[in-house]
Amino acid sequence: MDFSCPLPINNYPQILLAHGGGGKLMHELIEKIFMTSFANPALETRHDSAVLNLGNSRIAFTTDSYVVHPIFFPGGDIGTLAINGTVNDLAMSGARPLYLSAGFIIEEGLPTETLWRVAQSMRHAADAAGVSLVTGDTKVVDRGKGDGLFINTAGIGIVEHNLTIAPSSVALGDLIIINGDVGRHGIAIMAAREGLAFESEIESDCAPLNGIVLKLINSGLRVHCLRDLTRGGLATTLVEIAEASHLHINIDERAIPVREDVQGACEIMGFDPIYVANEGRFIAFVPEAEAKKVLDILVSDFQGMGSCVIGRVGGGAPGLVTMKSKIGVNRIVDMLSGEQLPRIC
Amino acid sequence: MDFSCPLPINNYPQILLAHGGGGKLMHELIEKIFMTSFANPALETRHDSAVLNLGNSRIAFTTDSYVVHPIFFPGGDIGTLAINGTVNDLAMSGARPLYLSAGFIIEEGLPTETLWRVAQSMRHAADAAGVSLVTGDTKVVDRGKGDGLFINTAGIGIVEHNLTIAPSSVALGDLIIINGDVGRHGIAIMAAREGLAFESEIESDCAPLNGIVLKLINSGLRVHCLRDLTRGGLATTLVEIAEASHLHINIDERAIPVREDVQGACEIMGFDPIYVANEGRFIAFVPEAEAKKVLDILVSDFQGMGSCVIGRVGGGAPGLVTMKSKIGVNRIVDMLSGEQLPRIC
Repeated sequence: MDFSCPLPINNYPQILLAHGGGGKLMHELIEKIFMTSFANPALETRHDSAVLNLGNSRIAFTTDSYVVHPIFFPGGDIGTLAINGTVNDLAMSGARPLYLSAGFIIEEGLPTETLWRVAQSMRHAADAAGVSLVTGDTKVVDRGKGDGLFINTAGIGIVEHNLTIAPSSVALGDLIIINGDVGRHGIAIMAAREGLAFESEIESDCAPLNGIVLKLINSGLRVHCLRDLTRGGLATTLVEIAEASHLHINIDERAIPVREDVQGACEIMGFDPIYVANEGRFIAFVPEAEAKKVLDILVSDFQGMGSCVIGRVGGGAPGLVTMKSKIGVNRIVDMLSGEQLPRIC
Repeated sequence: MDFSCPLPINNYPQILLAHGGGGKLMHELIEKIFMTSFANPALETRHDSAVLNLGNSRIAFTTDSYVVHPIFFPGGDIGTLAINGTVNDLAMSGARPLYLSAGFIIEEGLPTETLWRVAQSMRHAADAAGVSLVTGDTKVVDRGKGDGLFINTAGIGIVEHNLTIAPSSVALGDLIIINGDVGRHGIAIMAAREGLAFESEIESDCAPLNGIVLKLINSGLRVHCLRDLTRGGLATTLVEIAEASHLHINIDERAIPVREDVQGACEIMGFDPIYVANEGRFIAFVPEAEAKKVLDILVSDFQGMGSCVIGRVGGGAPGLVTMKSKIGVNRIVDMLSGEQLPRIC
């Protein structure tokens, strides 16, 4: 069995950019290669972090590599992303992030000053999120075998609640709350990459979400599931959760906050904002009875000032996401297909 | 302060391959950029893993990125390396490795079959070392912006002893014990890369060391320091420990096990085996009174059959390593200078 690859390699004998895009091909790659090879209960939860027993504690553990291009962009850089992205994956388990590792893969020829600036960004972002960078590694690859700088961070957090925050906890009737407008990170990267100038500069929404999430958790409210809206955007995340929970999700396009300049940029570039990546946005699935209290807590935090309800669980075929469009028509929302915007994070 | 880089950038305005080689330049880069930016007590120990408090437990946490070229080599591949390397860094704190993360950075165009083979290697290596791969991430970079496959793994272990296994615990009179012959990993990579054929195939010594180390720890013997001999080889590791402990180290070249074929290959290629990387070798610093018992335990394990004493702490200037050469002359041993063999791990 070991020597036959379970992906239909006639279809994809080689890895494509879309295999890293957060959409259908990436899910297929993960299922067919990694889930098959490494099968274990922690992986099976398919959540942003693994929640594990360690001594008498429950911990969350996660990792992400950052290959964003360009390294610097409006609102952040690869360093801020490498801290906030991993902090947010821990936060989505309701864990309190504590410790991060950092692995640097540097292309020969990178200006030393660039590395210094990125390290400083990481320090500031780590301070802001209240985490420590405690262990690291540095590798250098030959010129032409990398792209300036790639960073991997892994993170450990402590789980101090008794909730199971996961797609499996999503329940019929749950409301879906988002903490603000979507699409800014992806558009900021795209504009920086292509040298596009919009009337106003669109900055990435990159931000640590552990503070706002811990306020929710510590309030004792029953949070069923949390998920940040990175690669593949809001749409792909909703499909993942609908599939994993075997429930229907219905959202209302008019309720999804999109800034006017982001909407305009999306129209110019032919993107749909619900597929564009964010780095400071998440959705929470909560029982309807608690939604008002959840919103009150979220809007009182800087990272949640634009929070609102965008949809509800139930009302249709299990495993499917539908969206009531601006003109009132219900349509099926699918995962991101192909590669919309490579190397966004 | 944030905006002035503390490395003398007139000397090194750009990153060189040697900044990742494990030797002097890498140490300078780490000290000047990363230690300055991220200063905290866990980093200050300068050991292979950070040892941290978490709840009521003590844990070890470490990370390494793997950029070895070629991906497959005699005795292993990037997957076995990515598991064993991180397992070994945890073991060098005397921790019991439990959980690993894996971040894949794939170059567009990598054969899917290659990824499958590497994932299978990782599964087998993880099973052999008794660890679970519990969380992961996949990124794809455009063709020409990577080199096939880079892997980062981070690892968590639990520390179940009360020893402080670190350079700071090394004491005058300690004996230095190695668990076998040096230089095989580096020579195996070099031969695979350059298509060199020796009379016998030299295989990497890549192996998990947690089993043998835990036998030592669980025996109750006082182990002062452990360190695996990766980039920079035995020589660089000894210099690191002499400097960190502010003690003198003296080793005997005749006592260092080197296989005849490895010695021959080193002579052809102009390498000194004490600078060549290993992936299944470590040194232990132990009190002389316990050395006999330590050796008994080590030689009874498959990973320690070639164990022997190679030197002693003390007898010269603090912070310095000297070696009595094969012809009986004492010479100073320095860190690896420049880049002997890039992308060895």
